[in-house]
Order: sequence, then structure tokens, then C-alpha cells
Amino acid sequence: MKHDQLAFRDRYAAEGGLHWNEVIATQLRHRSVRSFLPDALPLGTVQTLVAAASSAPTSSNVQAWSVIAVQDPARKSRIAQMAGGQKHIVDAPLLLVWVADLSRHARVAERRGQRLEAIDFTETLLLASLDAALAAQNALVAAESLGFGTVYIGALRNHPEELAAELGLPPHAYAVVGLVVGHPDPAVATQVKPRLPQSAVLHLEQYDTGDAEAIVAHDAATRAFRREQGLPDEGWSDLILGRLGTVAALKGRHILRDVLQRLGFAQK
Amino acid sequence: MKHDQLAFRDRYAAEGGLHWNEVIATQLRHRSVRSFLPDALPLGTVQTLVAAASSAPTSSNVQAWSVIAVQDPARKSRIAQMAGGQKHIVDAPLLLVWVADLSRHARVAERRGQRLEAIDFTETLLLASLDAALAAQNALVAAESLGFGTVYIGALRNHPEELAAELGLPPHAYAVVGLVVGHPDPAVATQVKPRLPQSAVLHLEQYDTGDAEAIVAHDAATRAFRREQGLPDEGWSDLILGRLGTVAALKGRHILRDVLQRLGFAQK
Repeated sequence: MKHDQLAFRDRYAAEGGLHWNEVIATQLRHRSVRSFLPDALPLGTVQTLVAAASSAPTSSNVQAWSVIAVQDPARKSRIAQMAGGQKHIVDAPLLLVWVADLSRHARVAERRGQRLEAIDFTETLLLASLDAALAAQNALVAAESLGFGTVYIGALRNHPEELAAELGLPPHAYAVVGLVVGHPDPAVATQVKPRLPQSAVLHLEQYDTGDAEAIVAHDAATRAFRREQGLPDEGWSDLILGRLGTVAALKGRHILRDVLQRLGFAQK
Repeated sequence: MKHDQLAFRDRYAAEGGLHWNEVIATQLRHRSVRSFLPDALPLGTVQTLVAAASSAPTSSNVQAWSVIAVQDPARKSRIAQMAGGQKHIVDAPLLLVWVADLSRHARVAERRGQRLEAIDFTETLLLASLDAALAAQNALVAAESLGFGTVYIGALRNHPEELAAELGLPPHAYAVVGLVVGHPDPAVATQVKPRLPQSAVLHLEQYDTGDAEAIVAHDAATRAFRREQGLPDEGWSDLILGRLGTVAALKGRHILRDVLQRLGFAQK
């Protein structure tokens, strides 16, 4: 079987074929890594990842993001605590914190004695968060192309004010997501995780709600994957009901709207 | 000068060097394309882009996104109207609409007779929007690696309810951003746009607000780039004050919070 077919089968637990090159191969091979060697990254790695990030599109060239490179072990340890004790933040040499950042624009406006009326709207919170996400994703793919392992840390949104204080964030900035980067521990195998079939996520011309069968297939693929990983026997439907079913499952993020307001995102 | 140095100079209007491979080269070469040939995309292109998108990380495996592939000329034309008349939506063969999608999870819950309490929170709106952005960015890089031109359409957020009706979106779904994909018109030259220096966006350990000098440099680089493109003589600071200075510049998106509530995102 050819590379493109094997990669398609890993991702969708189904047969298929794709256009193929080194970029698409890197993307299709993605898996989250949570076991790292303590080895430092080669010189110039952070600069390369930030150049990739800067090359992502940005809404109207607003460039509403910043990134904080955290390498200090004590700081990584404190941040790991805020993120529910995720040990890989401590183990890996680098945590990149992707910040939705309108503070730079506020500083420019202040120096000119002007106001930024748009900063107070939900649209602008989304714009800055999306800018940060596009930048982060380019950095993730660049890191994996260089052979590093990565994992996003959404749990940075569990305690945004404590984290903002730790990182010295000015008003109009918040940490959207973290990205751990390091050398994967070769002793710990990782596998490509199956995703929803294309028939569920790809719609032609208009949205089609008839995805029940595709979800049954994905529940089965998820169970098979988890069995192989020695994880509890749950399908995707079980997992998402656990993750979205209760307010408690938000792990404190049910107050995010208020917290973001205090950090300078009014969300009108 | 080596490839990595040339690419760094294009992106930052400054000297530098990077780790280098085909993936990073593809990312660094990114520029938005707005002039397309009418030629159709090769068979399997959409499936390849969606496989790349599906391979992006997703928060807790929630997979809270869908994508609508719009190729019908009449529909593209109506959507172009909603997005302020952007002609490239009509000219290019493909518009991918990236949807923050919690409707699938709501359908799963409904079939099981359960509730999804978390769906009503700002955190969950952000989570789904971020999932859609990560997926879209993988598709963009994959498309450019195959030689296609792309441009994001943030203006899909100008009229979210009309667009939801056009695309038949169910409740708990909204269009985050569009991605136009096609063959670039070789008669229209495009250039890599300079970005803020790394000294402005990359912070070591803690946020550093001392970016005034870097912004002066970026204002100059932006002016030089725009002069070369025959665009009005404005620096980056002028552009962002124009884009964020007034509510009018939001082009209708100042009501996005209310509109998203009506589309099923309560944002508690």
C-alpha cells in the first residue's frame, strides 16, 4: 500500500487516497506527544517556529497575537500546576504560550492620543483568538517537520488571571493556548488518532445533518484505538458527552467570560 | 544568500537565518492570492485538504468543526455579496467555509436523551472557533504546498445569519472564516508581506511592552512594501488604527455577540 493510503487509513480507519507531498505527510502524521526527553532544543528553534507563526495569515494584517517562550523550570512548573498538573509541561524544554494580544494596538493608539473603539467587541476577541490559533498551528506543523513532538495545552484557560500575572500580560491580552515542544521520548510509542469520517465533517454546498451512521463508525474506530492504547472502552460519543455534558467538566472555564472582561476584553 | 535567509528577509524585512525544510519553506512563502484562473481543481483536492484539516489537533478530541465546500457559481456569488463583494470568491473554483460546529454534539446528546450544559458558555464558543481555525490553517498550508493560491475571508462574519441560512446551518453552528482556493493567475504578481519583527511578538519568559522601536521599524517596512505595490503611503500603525479605531470599521460585526446568541451560542 502507498504512503498516502496508509496515512489516510491511520487518520480515518478507512481506505482512501490523497494528493501527497512532504507537507501533507507531516500534517497527516500528527499525533500529540506527552512524553519528552529533557534535552534542550537546537539553537534557532524558537526563532524558526516564530517565523512560521508570523507567516500565517492574519485578519486585515492586524497581527493580534504574541507568543511567550517559557523555558525556566520553576515557571513551567507553576504553569503546569495552573493547567491541572500536566507533567509534560515540566518535562519538555519549551512551552510556547500563544496570546491573543490587542495590547500592542492599544499602546499604538495611546501614543497617538486616539481611541480603539473596536477593541471592546466580541468580534475583536474572536479575531485576536483566531489570529493566535493560526500562528500557533503553523508553529506546531513547523516543529513536527523538524522532528519535535508537540501538544497543545488548552488548560491554560483554566486560570487565565493567575497565568496573566505569571507572564506579566498587560491589559487586552490573554493566553489562548499553550504549545509544548520537545524531543519525544522514543521509549513511549504514540499513534495517529482516528477522526470523524469525511462524510461527517465535509458538506457539499449545504450542511447535511445526516451524520448518525458516520458517528457510529467513528465510535467503533475510537473504541478500537482506545483498546489498543489500554484506555477504557468508550466511543467518541461517550467522550464528548463527558466533556460537554456538565458545567463541572469545564474545569473552571464556565467563568471565562467574566475573567476575559477583567483582562480587557469587554465582549460587547 | 541562502533560501532560509532570503525567506527571513522577505518576511521581516531584516537579516536572519532559520532551520529549513520543505514544510517551513511552504509556510514562509505564504502570501494571500486574490486573482485566480477559472480552472477547476484536480479530483481529490478537497478530500486532501480535509484530511489535512482533520489531522490538526482538536481540544479534547471534541472535533467541534465542519467545513462546507461551495463550488456552485450562483451560491459563491451570493456569498461574495454578503462578504462585501469580494470578487475572488466568484473567480476561484472553491470556497471552503469553516464552521464552528457544536450541532453534531447536540444531535448525539439528543439521540441519547442527554443535555449538553457546556454548550452555552463563552469557553465553548472559543473552543469551537479555535478548532475550526486550526483545521482551516492546516488546509491552507496543504493547499499552498500543492501550488494553489489561497485567501481567508473573515468578512463571512459580516452577515452570519444570512450565511447560515444560505448554507443550511443547524443551531449551534456558525461560519468562522472562509478559505478561497484556486489556481493563482500567473499574470498578477504577489509578494510576501512583511510582519512585525520577532522582537515585538516573541517574549522571553514574560511579556515585554517595550515594542515602540520595533513598531517604528515595522511602520517603515510596511510603507516600503505598500509603495512597491502602488498602495497609499500608510504605515502599520495607520492601518490598525483605521481597522480598530471605530465601531463603523467593524462593518456590521459589532452585533456579532447577539447574532451568535441567536445561532445557538449563549456565551454565558
